Amino acid sequence: MKTILIVGIGAGHPDHITIQAIKALNRADVLFVPDKGAAKADLAGLRRDIIARHVTNPAARVIDYAVPQRDAANPSYGAGVDDWHGALAALFSELLAEVPEGGSCAFLVWGDPGLYDSTIRIVERLRATIELAIEIIPGITAIQALTAAHGIALNRIGAPVHITTGRRLGPVEEDTIVMLDGQTAFAEADPDLDIFWGAYLGTPDQITIAGRLGDMRDSIIATRQAARARHGWIMDTYLLRKRGEG
Amino acid sequence: MKTILIVGIGAGHPDHITIQAIKALNRADVLFVPDKGAAKADLAGLRRDIIARHVTNPAARVIDYAVPQRDAANPSYGAGVDDWHGALAALFSELLAEVPEGGSCAFLVWGDPGLYDSTIRIVERLRATIELAIEIIPGITAIQALTAAHGIALNRIGAPVHITTGRRLGPVEEDTIVMLDGQTAFAEADPDLDIFWGAYLGTPDQITIAGRLGDMRDSIIATRQAARARHGWIMDTYLLRKRGEG
Repeated sequence: MKTILIVGIGAGHPDHITIQAIKALNRADVLFVPDKGAAKADLAGLRRDIIARHVTNPAARVIDYAVPQRDAANPSYGAGVDDWHGALAALFSELLAEVPEGGSCAFLVWGDPGLYDSTIRIVERLRATIELAIEIIPGITAIQALTAAHGIALNRIGAPVHITTGRRLGPVEEDTIVMLDGQTAFAEADPDLDIFWGAYLGTPDQITIAGRLGDMRDSIIATRQAARARHGWIMDTYLLRKRGEG
Repeated sequence: MKTILIVGIGAGHPDHITIQAIKALNRADVLFVPDKGAAKADLAGLRRDIIARHVTNPAARVIDYAVPQRDAANPSYGAGVDDWHGALAALFSELLAEVPEGGSCAFLVWGDPGLYDSTIRIVERLRATIELAIEIIPGITAIQALTAAHGIALNRIGAPVHITTGRRLGPVEEDTIVMLDGQTAFAEADPDLDIFWGAYLGTPDQITIAGRLGDMRDSIIATRQAARARHGWIMDTYLLRKRGEG
């Protein structure tokens, strides 16, 4: 049996990594580093930096793999994701051939493997045909990097929090975290909300903007556009909250 | 000016700590370790264990302080919390006298300082009268320890997540994490939901139970009661989710 370690490596800062994650990476015979193309080359570089700093096991092999693109043109979001997971599962199954029998491999995942990441689901698909041990190592998420950067708590006293995607953002009743928002869904939200926005969280390129949404909206959109043009990619996250409630 | 480092140390496993947190603890002149009484002595012990393992700064002083109790008898939850925060702010202000001028101190916080923890709010109160620099270091939360222990993702594909307290748990429409539930609020929830429950997450005493709520409810309540009697305290967290939706 082979062991797959799905290792959360934090939200962008190389020091977000936990001791548990470092130990897991050092147990692996093979480390898999996804390559999402030239545009996100700095992300792959950050992963390699983490390996160079923390992996001391001289026997560990590092294998890069090209991540297939999700077909964003598929009219059904669910079917598009399902096809993409299928392609990734086929790829992972090939990668596993590189792992010695009885050995371990690690997938390095940004943030936490449990939050808006597909690695767990894809590895679970493989289990249908291959006997595997799976271990998940939690990591710091962009949500935590966002609230730490803004110096705020995520929740109000005893109050709930909603986590959603740009695609699903509706009227904001509770404090709401929005992730995976490629479409600046905040632009349509109530201008009297407060926004706490952050991009490239944890990295030297981190940008944060906070204030009344109606006052900050244009500045966030412009900042986001300029940063995306400069880096070739952007990852941003934000909290929307009604004003002045404790 | 003095610097306050509010450092997330993870959900119970000493290896949950991040490199960023270790570096922060080693920058502090004084480390504050809360003492919540004999019942939670093992938690204070875990904090001291983390300090012993990772703090190499020989000049750092460790100061224990007794945490005042919140008046749970106050009929207004909000007013009770507010009084309690006031008492803690007065205590923190005394503790700060132990920090040299221009120096740094660290508060060690379980989980992440942004999630259902009052340290950020209490330190913000002090800012009204004392000039302070505040730095927040994220930590692994019980939510992440829970999903990692169960080997599951927190969210369904592209779907939202709700985080709430036992006090506020209502009908479950979306995948819902419940924290701070002293009253086993899950007992009243729809028996056809799935529950993923965990206690003492990340510690050697970790217990997890998962399944259809109607089938697992009594076993979780009995397990919880026995564990609480054995340890003198319990911290548990759970995810409620509708069955069979991807």
